Order: sequence, then C-alpha cells, then structure tokens
Amino acid sequence: MSGPMKVVIIGGVAAGPKTASKVIRLLPETEVTIVEQGELLSYAGCGLPYYVSGVVKQQKELLSTPIGVVRDPVFFRNVKNVHVLNRTEALKIDRAGKRVRVRALQSGEESWLDYEKLVLATGGTPVVPPIPHVGLENIFTLHGVHDAEGIRAVLAEGKARDVVIVGGGLIGVETTEALVESGCRVTIVEMLPQVLNVLDWEMAKLVERHMESHGVKVLTGSKVLSFEGNGRVSAVVTEHGTLPADMVVLAVGVRPNVGLAREAGLEIGTTGAIRVDDHMRTSDPDVYAAGDCVESVDLVTGRPCFVPLGSTANKQGRVAAVNLCGGEDVFPGVLGSTVCKVFNYCVARTGLTETAAKQLGYEATTALAPGPDRAHYMPGAAPLLLKLVVDRKTRKLLGAQAIGPGAGDKRIDVAAMALTAGMTIDQLANVDLCYAPPYAPAMDNIITAANVVRNKLDGKMVGISPQEVRQMMNAKEDFVLLDVRSPAEYEEVRLPGSTSIPLGTLRKLVGKLPKDKRIVTFCKVSLRGYEAALILKAAQFENVSVMDGGIAMWPYEKVA
Amino acid sequence: MSGPMKVVIIGGVAAGPKTASKVIRLLPETEVTIVEQGELLSYAGCGLPYYVSGVVKQQKELLSTPIGVVRDPVFFRNVKNVHVLNRTEALKIDRAGKRVRVRALQSGEESWLDYEKLVLATGGTPVVPPIPHVGLENIFTLHGVHDAEGIRAVLAEGKARDVVIVGGGLIGVETTEALVESGCRVTIVEMLPQVLNVLDWEMAKLVERHMESHGVKVLTGSKVLSFEGNGRVSAVVTEHGTLPADMVVLAVGVRPNVGLAREAGLEIGTTGAIRVDDHMRTSDPDVYAAGDCVESVDLVTGRPCFVPLGSTANKQGRVAAVNLCGGEDVFPGVLGSTVCKVFNYCVARTGLTETAAKQLGYEATTALAPGPDRAHYMPGAAPLLLKLVVDRKTRKLLGAQAIGPGAGDKRIDVAAMALTAGMTIDQLANVDLCYAPPYAPAMDNIITAANVVRNKLDGKMVGISPQEVRQMMNAKEDFVLLDVRSPAEYEEVRLPGSTSIPLGTLRKLVGKLPKDKRIVTFCKVSLRGYEAALILKAAQFENVSVMDGGIAMWPYEKVA
Repeated sequence: MSGPMKVVIIGGVAAGPKTASKVIRLLPETEVTIVEQGELLSYAGCGLPYYVSGVVKQQKELLSTPIGVVRDPVFFRNVKNVHVLNRTEALKIDRAGKRVRVRALQSGEESWLDYEKLVLATGGTPVVPPIPHVGLENIFTLHGVHDAEGIRAVLAEGKARDVVIVGGGLIGVETTEALVESGCRVTIVEMLPQVLNVLDWEMAKLVERHMESHGVKVLTGSKVLSFEGNGRVSAVVTEHGTLPADMVVLAVGVRPNVGLAREAGLEIGTTGAIRVDDHMRTSDPDVYAAGDCVESVDLVTGRPCFVPLGSTANKQGRVAAVNLCGGEDVFPGVLGSTVCKVFNYCVARTGLTETAAKQLGYEATTALAPGPDRAHYMPGAAPLLLKLVVDRKTRKLLGAQAIGPGAGDKRIDVAAMALTAGMTIDQLANVDLCYAPPYAPAMDNIITAANVVRNKLDGKMVGISPQEVRQMMNAKEDFVLLDVRSPAEYEEVRLPGSTSIPLGTLRKLVGKLPKDKRIVTFCKVSLRGYEAALILKAAQFENVSVMDGGIAMWPYEKVA
Repeated sequence: MSGPMKVVIIGGVAAGPKTASKVIRLLPETEVTIVEQGELLSYAGCGLPYYVSGVVKQQKELLSTPIGVVRDPVFFRNVKNVHVLNRTEALKIDRAGKRVRVRALQSGEESWLDYEKLVLATGGTPVVPPIPHVGLENIFTLHGVHDAEGIRAVLAEGKARDVVIVGGGLIGVETTEALVESGCRVTIVEMLPQVLNVLDWEMAKLVERHMESHGVKVLTGSKVLSFEGNGRVSAVVTEHGTLPADMVVLAVGVRPNVGLAREAGLEIGTTGAIRVDDHMRTSDPDVYAAGDCVESVDLVTGRPCFVPLGSTANKQGRVAAVNLCGGEDVFPGVLGSTVCKVFNYCVARTGLTETAAKQLGYEATTALAPGPDRAHYMPGAAPLLLKLVVDRKTRKLLGAQAIGPGAGDKRIDVAAMALTAGMTIDQLANVDLCYAPPYAPAMDNIITAANVVRNKLDGKMVGISPQEVRQMMNAKEDFVLLDVRSPAEYEEVRLPGSTSIPLGTLRKLVGKLPKDKRIVTFCKVSLRGYEAALILKAAQFENVSVMDGGIAMWPYEKVA
C-alpha cells in the first residue's frame, strides 16, 4: 500500500464527524472523506425540540462548536483536515473492490471513492406509520433540522393552535413541551397504556399527571386510525374519537438505516440494526459502524439492544477511530441511561425497569423513595421520586428511575455507575457521595432508597405497591388504609377511604385498630409509614404492609 | 440476661440519634437511652452557615424532620420510643461493670446507667488555637447552634462590619459566604499557601479568585499572631499586618472527642480519633462508636483517615445499629467526598489530590478539563472546571475535583462511584451516563476529562501545567506561548507574552513558527490547543506541549 490511509465515512451528523476528527488526531496524514446526504453536518439533533420552542434561538447554534464556529465543510477542511462531500448520497458499497459508489445530489454525477477502512454512520430514520392520509401537509416528524424548520414555519404563521403528537416516547414528550411553550394546545396519543415506556407504569403515570397540570391532554391506550384534512391536516381520528389538529408530529420511533449495509452483505443483528463487535467492527474487518445505525449490548442482561442516542454515538465514533487506526479500544455496551426534561420535571432512568426485569425472569424487589433532593430546610429543595429495581437473588442493582423537579439526573448517573460496576444494593447504601445542604440530604436520596430495598430484602419491611392497594380498593376488600401523617397534611389531601392516626399518637391509640384485618400504612413518603408498621408489629399486629412511596407517589386520584 | 436489651448512646446530634432510631426499628423492645450534653438534639450542624446568613430563617428548621416536627425528647419518646437525657454529661465509662456514670447538668445529680451495648457518638470539638487574647468577646467558632446564635446576635446589632475568618477550610469558606451575604466585609486568613487544602493549588486559586470577585479579601500563607480589643475584639494581628475586626470566626479544624474513650482504655487510632473496625466496633466488642469521633479507612489508599462529615455519621450510625442488634453490616470507608457552595461556584472533590497522590508515591497523571456543564447552546449552560488524577501504572482513577458555576457535584459523585468500584480511566470514558441538552453535553464533562487523561497516558498529547508555564515565564525562558483562539477571544482577554494564531489559519501559517523553540499551545479549554499541537506535530515540530485547562483554568493574572 502506498501513500496515506484512505478512510471513507458515510454519515456526517454525530458518529461520523466524531470518528473523522479522532482519526485525524491519531494519524494526521490520513485522507478522511465524509459522505453526507444532507446539507448540514454535525448538528445537535437532540437540541431540535429546544430549537422548535425557541429556547435555542438560531439554527446556527445547533451547528456550532462551543465557541461559536459553524461546523461546515470549510471548517472540516481547514481545522480538521477532513474532506466533506455533503449533499452526496452513498449508493452502494463494493466490499471486494473496497470502494463506495456516490452521487452528488445537485449535479447527479456519480463516482467511486476508494477506501482502506470504511465507517458506516448512517444513523436512523423516523418511522412514518402507514396511517391513511399521513402525507397531508403539516404532518411532521422531528428528526433533522429540516423538520424543525418546517414546524417553526407553521408556528410562525400563528395558526397551529391544536397540535396532536402521535407517540409518547422521549421525542414525543420533549416535543410536547416545546409546542406547549410555543402556545399550542397539545394532545399526546399513545397506543400503549402509558407514555415513556422506558419507565414503569406508576412512574409514567406521575409524568402524565405532571404534563396534564401543564394543560397537555394525554390519551394512552389509544390508536390513531387516520388523519383528515383538505391538503393540510385538520383532524386526527383515534379509536376514542376525533381530535382537531392544525399540526401533527409523528414520534413513533426511529429505525436504523441499514440498507447499504444489508445490500453489501454485512451482518444485521436481531434488533434490525447493524451488528458490530466491541471494537465497533462489522462482520467485515475493514468496515466499522457507529451511532444510531448499530445495535449495542445491554450491560445488565448481556443481550443485544437498539438504543439510539447522541451520547452513545460520540463514544462509539471515538472507539471506532482508535481501532481502525490500529489502536485498541473497547465499547462495552449501554444501560439505556436517559434523561428528559418534562416541563419542570427531570425524568431519568437507567438499566432495567421492574416490568422488564420480571419479564426476563429476575425476582425483582423495588423501592419507591420520594424525598427532597437536598437538605429539606434549604430554599430550592425540590421533590425527587426515586425507584430502584434490585435482584433479590444477587442483591445487585438492576435499574433505577427518577422523576420530579429535583436533581434526578445526578442520582441516575450514580445508579448507572453502580450498574456498570455490578454493585450490590448493600455497597450502594454506603458509598461516599458528596454532601452539603445545598446539594443533597445527609443521607443522599439514592442511599435512602437503597436502604428501603435492604429493609425489604432482609424482611424488616413488607411493602405493597400503590397498584396492589388500588386493586384491593376496587375489589372492595376489607382492610385499613392507615394514614399516619399529621392532621394538617390529612386535611390538605388524602386517599379515598383512608383512616387518619398521626404517628405521634399511634402508640397510644394502637388499641383502636382491629387485629384481624390487614393494615396498610403510609405517610407522605412512607418513612413514617414504616415506623408505624414497626409499632404495630411490636404490638402483635400480624398483617401489616407499608405502601411504597406514600401519597407522594400515588399515581391515581386523591381527595383534596 | 433477663428483660429487653439496654443500649446507651452517648451523643445526640447525628450518629447517636441515627443509631437509636435504627436499633428501635430492628428490635423494638430495646431500652435505648441517649445521653446528650447540650439541650438540642439531632440538629443539622452542616446547615449552620445557612442559618447564620438567614437563608434558613428559623433555628427550628435545623431541628425538624422534613415534615416540620421538632426532634425533641418528647418526639423521641412518643415516635421513636427512645429515652433522651439531654443536658446530661457522661462522666466515665465503667467497662467492667458495663455502666456509664452521668451527671444531670441542671441538678448536678449523678447516677449510673447500665448498658449491654454502648455507642460512643461523642462528635468533635472545634479547635481553638492558643493565640493571645482568643478569649475576647465576638470571637466565635461555628460548630453548634449556640455558636450560630451568638454570631446572629452580633449581626443583629448591625455593628459587625469587618469580619476576619481564621482558617480557609470548608467551614471557613462556607462561613465567609454567609457573612458576606449578611453584609460584612470579610477577610480570610489562612496559614497555608491556599484555601481549601482538600483541593490542588491551582484549583484552590481559582476559588480564591472567585471569592475575591465577591469582595472577600483572601490572605494565604499568613499566620494570626494575636487578637486585640478591649473586652470585644477590634483587630487581628497577622504576620502581614493588622486587620480591623468587629467579629472573628475561628475555623481551623475539628478535633474528635475521645476523652471518655481514652480514659476507658479503648484504642485510639493514629489520627487521634477512636479506632473502630468495619462493623463500627471499638476495641471492646460491646462498645461501638460512630460519627465525628471515629477514624475511617481511606478507600483509595487503605490508610486510616479522619474526615468528620454528617453524611458519614449517618451511615456509620446505621451500620453500628445493625451490628449491635446482632445483624451484619459493613462500613467500608470513605473517599473524602465533599461539596461546598462558594457564592455561585459549586466546589466538589473526592479521592486523592495530585499533591497527595504524589506524596504517597503514585505516578500521577492529570487532566484539567473545562467546559459547559450541559449542551453549550442551552441557556443556563454554566462553566465547569474538572480535574482528574489518575495512576499511570494501573490507569485507575485516584481522585477528582470540580469547581465553577456548573453542576460539579454530579460529576464528583460519578467519580466517587468510579473510585468505589476501582475503575480505570478507560472504563470511565465509556460509561453510559444520562444525556439530554438541558442536563449534560453529549460527551459528559467527566468523559471528556477521562479522554484527555487517556490521550496523555497513550502519548498522544504532551501536557504542561499552568504552574510550569508560569515558571518558564518567570525564568524568562525563550518559548512560544501559542494562543489559537479567535481574534475576538484574544482581544477580550489573553495571557502575558502570548502569540495569537487562530486554529483555522494555523495550517497555512505554520511556516511562521520557529522549529527550534519549545511551543506551548492553548485555547479557552485546550481542545483547540490540542488540535494545534497535532497540526504542529504533523508539520515536524518536535517540542510541542498543550497547556492543561487552557486560559479558563489559568490561575494567575491575565491581560484584559
């Protein structure tokens, strides 16, 4: 081989430019060419909802480096020494000949690009469901800058009063907030029984309540049957009625772009994305792939998974570059760590949900632990609702979820580290996290949550989920739902059918409770509920459970 | 043994009440007695600076549970079934007789309390240095609620204009902010060459600059010789002059209260605190100890250390309770994780500093990595300056420090988890942390910092610290200090003697630079500085280094 190494990278949004930059840093003489179908390169796709809402004012900001330099082909040439062919489509990979057929979209001219190493960073495409009339005007997806510009143009006209979001996943929820901030009346229509399927049901319901408090209509368990309109969309027909709609955003998922890879005979994984090893190498050792077009390994289960995220794309791009330059780096896999802003809630999660854990055969024990995210006496202390999922057999953490105005992203990052290290809940309970009143309670929320799980695992506490309590209510079972909060708290808001005995008086009034009935104790967060259960247990009550998460995490209606 | 177990706990602030509550939860029949010298129980000592500043309005808030119930002896009796003897001094432990001699401070009455298990939670005492006239009025420590009330009373008089804080450690710095917020002119006098000795020098200097920008005078390397005043303090005499002072706060450290333990013949550790095993048991198997009176194990070095913190006290109290009730729990040790609010900076750290690591014989490699704490295009993105310390031999993380207005506590908690798990920098670089634009950059700050260290370890980048560059300047060495930021950035602020060649033009202008001189490149954060070094390296320049942390982390004066 004579001359410098030739690297061709197909895709110029996230993993592609990252790979290109790192290759040049490692081997500056390399001839790196990025082939990108669109005009724009290296844009912050995850920032699009904030561009729609106007939080991000100019398109340029999404295309710039932190110091404001736009990442255009000139930038890549001068700063990175990377050649960029934008508005250019990759048509075909000739693996035997080690070349890629490309077509310049403006001129229509076709040519071959030779490569020594090829990187597929072809990304994903938003799914457009085959619903009748899905081609009407003002029906958008939100995937590229172009989509965002389309939505902004409709908003600028000032006529998009009613908007329907089809799909309540992460992008649907982020887009909902963006459109509410823009003054729209938004309805989310979701086929599944809950939004944000990456959360457990009761956590998702609390997010739905929060969105409703901001005027959003949430229709779960509801399928879209067709769109109506004359040229422009005017209504969405669902199983449960017709919704007026001046605009529709489809957010039903992203499919990996694997056409080129498949035609070239590269292995496609069980998830439908390109299969790579932990070096980001495809089934052809000279072809790497990274970003939204590849599948990853789930670090908790060891199974393949498809979790397209910008953070993962960047890490994978670096790993691909190191390896294709002859170095050695490993991308171990993902945890499905995600965070999402939903009005003033931070919603975050990592690892397995309880539902997923149980489906996979784990004997999952959980904690619902609400509490302030810093010392409760500090102004700015904000509620944070945590859920931990733990394997009863190994006592290892399996997953964590956080919602609320408090700093949930911090606790979920800590949980992600615990998952990466395979920590048990006992180890997690004693980690030395930072403490000062403006940042955390003396016992950090995740440590308190870990201790709740330990109490359950060690048989110190019998928990009952809000869902089970609700079932008992619906079945009109004869049990005592014992609220041990203060009279003032009870006055403010309570659960239907509950009995009030404040914790401070329980020792004296314990004789008033029936010993032959099941008693479910709770308070605001269920710490006092736990103390109450212990007092009852000491007084020879035998059928006592503590409701997980207290009234703070009750996902159904309350009596005010 | 007949009847329920008797547990006596000496100390009622943090570890003591925690132990008591947990013992009662585990074995409700236990007779638990807390002996507390002061009147107040279970108060939030770490909240005292915020009570001084008025951020926390009422004393009561520091004494209450999250739902506003004051933790007084009646609360402990009715809710916890714990007997409290406050205003009671423990005089002597009779280990052979398994009893404690106590004296009620009001009546002077003495009596014996029998125990089966004893817990020492005697806490610490602020050090009062033997400086002449230290007994003058208006010279305070800030350790208990009583101290805070004293300082508040002086502030309420409105005459405390000039305040001197003796000691620039965590408490000194937190108190400084509290007093500036109260309208005082504050000077910190610190004997060492820097404040916050838990940070490396260049990080501490950046905190000093920040305090100075809020009007604080910081005198480092300066010893207090005496206090002056007529009854009340009026001045502080230091090695470098006399400072006017209407009030003085002594914040030179905390000593563990080990008198009772020592007299009872219990083993005292090398740090001067009570020695305990990982079950929180002292050298007497029936005597446990927890909180600010015990020493811990440093999880990085395995050596004993004394790091008194409220978070640790609470965890240790729980572990002591589980074990003394016959269960099994382990407190593994600490990392010295700490966070502290300094005006609008979050200052956080965990593990070893570079200085400590080198003193212990580690071959420490570091990264200084500044950057926005979330996607740079999001409003609210705030600068965060990270430092990582890594062992070159094992590639394991040894410690981390964060300063700046950005969310440093989150990254230091992640680092603490990495230290707990013994992770290498390579593992840390690929962890799946949460990403969305309002919460993090696509490559989280700690992942970027980890990659900088990897580049150095792998010989891709030669770093040079700002301290070394400063020494070269002082020694008038002939080198090129190459600023590759944009002309606009250079215009705004620059380093003395630097040469400006923006990165975008460097490839063309590379011929203008001398090949025989050392070149030190930098930019705002030194990512462009790193790119510049790679361009120079490719152009056959042989003596090129990148200045760690860029101009953002330059701890000396700049030219504006």
